[in-house]
Amino acid sequence: MADHNALPLVILAEQFARLPGIGMKTAQRLAYHIMSMSESDVKAFANALIEAKKTVHPCSVCQNLTELDLCLICDDGRRDKSLICVVESPKDVTAFERTREYRGVYHVLHGLISPIDGVTPDSLRIKELLSRIKDGEVSEIIMATNPTVEGEATAMYIAKLLKPMGVKVTRLAFGLPVGGILEYADEITLFRALENRSEM
Amino acid sequence: MADHNALPLVILAEQFARLPGIGMKTAQRLAYHIMSMSESDVKAFANALIEAKKTVHPCSVCQNLTELDLCLICDDGRRDKSLICVVESPKDVTAFERTREYRGVYHVLHGLISPIDGVTPDSLRIKELLSRIKDGEVSEIIMATNPTVEGEATAMYIAKLLKPMGVKVTRLAFGLPVGGILEYADEITLFRALENRSEM
Repeated sequence: MADHNALPLVILAEQFARLPGIGMKTAQRLAYHIMSMSESDVKAFANALIEAKKTVHPCSVCQNLTELDLCLICDDGRRDKSLICVVESPKDVTAFERTREYRGVYHVLHGLISPIDGVTPDSLRIKELLSRIKDGEVSEIIMATNPTVEGEATAMYIAKLLKPMGVKVTRLAFGLPVGGILEYADEITLFRALENRSEM
Repeated sequence: MADHNALPLVILAEQFARLPGIGMKTAQRLAYHIMSMSESDVKAFANALIEAKKTVHPCSVCQNLTELDLCLICDDGRRDKSLICVVESPKDVTAFERTREYRGVYHVLHGLISPIDGVTPDSLRIKELLSRIKDGEVSEIIMATNPTVEGEATAMYIAKLLKPMGVKVTRLAFGLPVGGILEYADEITLFRALENRSEM
């Protein structure tokens, strides 16, 4: 924001601009919007920030974010505890839950192995996953990390650790996205779709 | 956010989603991002919200937002106080300041007349503009509202009030945007550009 602007507004816009996907122009627009809100609405927003940060923490079992000791999915007696879907982040849990088809539980790694970004296996929640498997009961682990270099590397790394433990490790299928157009698929996706073709 | 999510996170995402231009999916992503920030960074964000709302208010002269009694532009002795540029919102002041060419002062209306949205002339800062003119010293008022139906109506309404006061009222020029392509200009813009043509 230009230097003629009120300093508290500049500071607020800078705070918004630190959020992912929000540029300085949008941040400025949001700061102006805050000015048009009632004082109680602004307080509610500020409190929501503080409260979420203070009360939300990883679930003691699956590491997904929750305000409880055990998250609602781990605490749900109808979920199949022998099937664990390993994902990068809480966002991915939401994506799977949206399908309304998956009835197993999750394990959130909170990141992917990426030496360039300084993310080593130790900084992920991998040992928590191993200890869940040592407790028995688990029959299958679905590696559901993104189909990216880091996602693949992380899936491979964890699969290698799990195999000696005698647990079945699977990976999400690769192929054409449903509703996608063949012509626009990249060559690797198309190759994978061809390789994993199934009988009709 | 799905019902398996931590309640404080759902509340936070809903707060983000109330901001203009932020949909539920982006709001959820932002809420997760807040979780990855340090507690002191989240507190700084919450404080910036509260502080901006508490300390920023309209300038006693031009009605632009400021944390001071008199904004930095009105307080600047080098600005020409006899020239007032009337704009809809503080954003527009920033737009004009970016040109680094305008040396007059501003008047922020905080809206445009729009009977459909229940915005009447009384809810805008029009009387504050009239009292600035009554104080003398003003030689020209530039109506710089948007070239929309509401912007035009507001400019016309104010111009009618000002003319009997013996002050010169001007309107921003309409024409082709610089760098624009003639072929893509709408017919009204093109007509205005033709009408307001100048000798070379």
